[in-house]
Amino acid sequence: MPLTELKNHLAELHNLSMAGAVLGWDQRTHMPPRGGAARAAQQATLSRIHHEMFVGPRTRELLEAAGGAAAQLDPDSADAALLRVVRRDFAKATRVPTALVVELTRTCSLAEEVWAAARATNTFATFAPWLEKIIELKRQYAAALGYTGHIYDALLDDYEPDMTVRQLDPILAELKRQTVPLVAAIAGRPPIADALLTRDYDPAAQQVFAERILRACGFDFARGRLDRTVHPFCTNFSINDVRITTRYDAAWLPAALFGCLHEMGHAFYEMNVNPAYEATPLAGGVSLGVHESQSRLWENLVGRSRGFWQCYYPDLQRAFPRQLGTVPADDFYRAINRVQPSLIRVEADEITYNLHIIIRYEMEMALLDGSLAVADAPAAWNQRMSQYLGITPPTDREGILQDVHWAAGLIGYFPTYTLGNILAVQIYQAALAAHPAIPEEIAQGQFSTLFAFLRDNIHCHGRKYPPAELITRATGRPLTVEPYVHYLQTKFGELYKL
Amino acid sequence: MPLTELKNHLAELHNLSMAGAVLGWDQRTHMPPRGGAARAAQQATLSRIHHEMFVGPRTRELLEAAGGAAAQLDPDSADAALLRVVRRDFAKATRVPTALVVELTRTCSLAEEVWAAARATNTFATFAPWLEKIIELKRQYAAALGYTGHIYDALLDDYEPDMTVRQLDPILAELKRQTVPLVAAIAGRPPIADALLTRDYDPAAQQVFAERILRACGFDFARGRLDRTVHPFCTNFSINDVRITTRYDAAWLPAALFGCLHEMGHAFYEMNVNPAYEATPLAGGVSLGVHESQSRLWENLVGRSRGFWQCYYPDLQRAFPRQLGTVPADDFYRAINRVQPSLIRVEADEITYNLHIIIRYEMEMALLDGSLAVADAPAAWNQRMSQYLGITPPTDREGILQDVHWAAGLIGYFPTYTLGNILAVQIYQAALAAHPAIPEEIAQGQFSTLFAFLRDNIHCHGRKYPPAELITRATGRPLTVEPYVHYLQTKFGELYKL
Repeated sequence: MPLTELKNHLAELHNLSMAGAVLGWDQRTHMPPRGGAARAAQQATLSRIHHEMFVGPRTRELLEAAGGAAAQLDPDSADAALLRVVRRDFAKATRVPTALVVELTRTCSLAEEVWAAARATNTFATFAPWLEKIIELKRQYAAALGYTGHIYDALLDDYEPDMTVRQLDPILAELKRQTVPLVAAIAGRPPIADALLTRDYDPAAQQVFAERILRACGFDFARGRLDRTVHPFCTNFSINDVRITTRYDAAWLPAALFGCLHEMGHAFYEMNVNPAYEATPLAGGVSLGVHESQSRLWENLVGRSRGFWQCYYPDLQRAFPRQLGTVPADDFYRAINRVQPSLIRVEADEITYNLHIIIRYEMEMALLDGSLAVADAPAAWNQRMSQYLGITPPTDREGILQDVHWAAGLIGYFPTYTLGNILAVQIYQAALAAHPAIPEEIAQGQFSTLFAFLRDNIHCHGRKYPPAELITRATGRPLTVEPYVHYLQTKFGELYKL
Repeated sequence: MPLTELKNHLAELHNLSMAGAVLGWDQRTHMPPRGGAARAAQQATLSRIHHEMFVGPRTRELLEAAGGAAAQLDPDSADAALLRVVRRDFAKATRVPTALVVELTRTCSLAEEVWAAARATNTFATFAPWLEKIIELKRQYAAALGYTGHIYDALLDDYEPDMTVRQLDPILAELKRQTVPLVAAIAGRPPIADALLTRDYDPAAQQVFAERILRACGFDFARGRLDRTVHPFCTNFSINDVRITTRYDAAWLPAALFGCLHEMGHAFYEMNVNPAYEATPLAGGVSLGVHESQSRLWENLVGRSRGFWQCYYPDLQRAFPRQLGTVPADDFYRAINRVQPSLIRVEADEITYNLHIIIRYEMEMALLDGSLAVADAPAAWNQRMSQYLGITPPTDREGILQDVHWAAGLIGYFPTYTLGNILAVQIYQAALAAHPAIPEEIAQGQFSTLFAFLRDNIHCHGRKYPPAELITRATGRPLTVEPYVHYLQTKFGELYKL
């Protein structure tokens, strides 16, 4: 059976990737400080073996052998989808010379350390030559992959398959057009007080509450864990072994509270892929945008809703009586939804968040097409911050140096965050259309209808359908920005009495 | 440079092994229960790739190429030692057919589950056919490896290189000759009370105390960790990333207290190998016996000494004032050194422990040479327990089914525990001969002289010298049982007024 042989070969590749993921999780949660050098070497060995095994002649032979059998497959079957996905991955992987892969990996591994030091000392100049080199390597990478439209398309495709600048530009333009005046209107209203979120919240008590909420929403601790880390993430080594991480800040309750709900949304996706896809290329999320839609849906549409806290605020008050005992539920709801232009993307509210993304997208385009020089990038960043958000970073540390992405070679990645925000609303509204009682259920602490809708319409399919097809199947239409804009206008119009 | 190429190849193999070790550590400390199936598949992939890479033509080519250059090497150099070690490992690995390796791995993986169920339900009969199969496979394995003396030599060599039945038999016979009457003499004396060790000891407080002791002895938490597990172990992924684990039993203080000191001894070995050997086959302990000597040295010769508790007992009393506040130091010292024939090896005292090992060794010899049938093994076990220890297991669960080793295919492994006990005393006495102030320093909580002696005479050499040569270099003579017997007679003669 050529298809079975191909699947066995792919399962070995999958197992190697998962071993690398375990090493990555350990590195960011438990590894003692001095273990880093050996860990980097171990990861490099696993990556090298994986790459050689994947682009090697065996994969091609097995793909060709399976191709003969493929003619008999139902085009809507999982096996047909698997062949499509593997052929796509294989074609991309073999187009890039190994030397370029190695050079990118090596450069970014070193650049991350340079970036961390540059950020710590607020010296963009030391990072600038590395950013130049990475942009140049990414141009070569895009050229190797090939593209018909914009060079950015080749990079974006790694994170959001089939998405192009041609589709993305009008989406982000419309969002900018609607959001900038909304932020301005809110700035003209009395600010919402959120000092109540900065009181001394014991991390251990935060963790107990977070675990309770995770369980209530459906997180299965027999198939997952919650650990501490510096930069929260979700990873998985199997459909049945999904790990989320968080960071407890005693002086900022939302960090872990909404951080956990966010990572839980990612975890639900990985945990609910069709078990038949385990250890195949169909396991896992179909794109970063769709993945982010799941984290944002639980973080914002569920977790920052009135109904959710109607159910859980009394529990939170019991967990933190000194901090919240006399705070009315509505004050808490308003505090966690405060809109305020700020310098740091990861701390931004639901509205201004996308402006941070748009700035990064515009910068990446200009850096790639050469219209912006790296040396001029900090000024360009600050100019856009001032224009879109009305504030100017006092330092590059709080400006262009804040994110690790570019140092890590992740150029073309940022737009998927905003696609996730947009899709979260579109998918949630599809769930509401199918099950209008969902908001009432959430207010009762019942999440099973929503959980099942997401599982059956998004999660279970894994990578079977391309992102655009998945969205149309799940919501009845392609990705559309209007429902998201309408959601922001309605929610924050009510909050700020616009 | 053929040697450099060989080293690079071996580093890749090492990195694969280390990745497997990280997966194993995670599995036994943090993995959610349902993650097991995928983890087994990941481990199988790593093992398969490692085995194929190691026995494949590339290793042979590189060894042959390096062989030419080897003539110029100083025979006492690390590079010459590396070539010796790799040739030995390669010769062994290539002698065993891959099919037999796979069959052993598969059988033992399944047999472990059968054993666990048989132990839980106390039904040796369900495990018997698996044990028969494992013994038969181990016979084939020994035949594939080849041996000139006893079949047992081939198995023992995996755990204690170069050790043979011819050397081992007189050692164990002498130990049995001296120990059985010592146990009988102690049985005729009034028993030592140890109920004070069974009072309610809060696990969290035990952990705080254990971490303090580990730090005091020299355990570097920047290069290691202490975690919880069911079956304690030490593992490492680098000289700079060594993990120990323990199990806290509220009703039995010694479990974690001496368990941590034991695993710490193993950890010190791995942490103190010459950093130049990192990621080469010279990194790591030279044999299980020498490894166990390090754990037993810290657990028993340091941790169960009067001097150690002269320093730390007041601290322990402060940590557990309700349980130990009014208990004199000498009562505590006597309790942690109580000798009492018992059914379970891992709970045995310093003297009777070796009788448990001798029983297993005699059983393994008889099972391998066919003089004992598996069906008759439980009765043979119980007969020996009665003869050597004066007690008879009421059930097989407390008898022949207690250890996982045989189910895991670890036949020939048990004697290394006793070799470790013997070597611990021989090495400790060499340290005392070189530095007579060590006992006084320990009584002051100063461990640096002992730590440095072990590092410089044992640990730093890694696998550079064969075990016998290492011992002679470190202690001035080959492995000798008399100092150990003398130690037992003196220590317990004093305690029991013999």
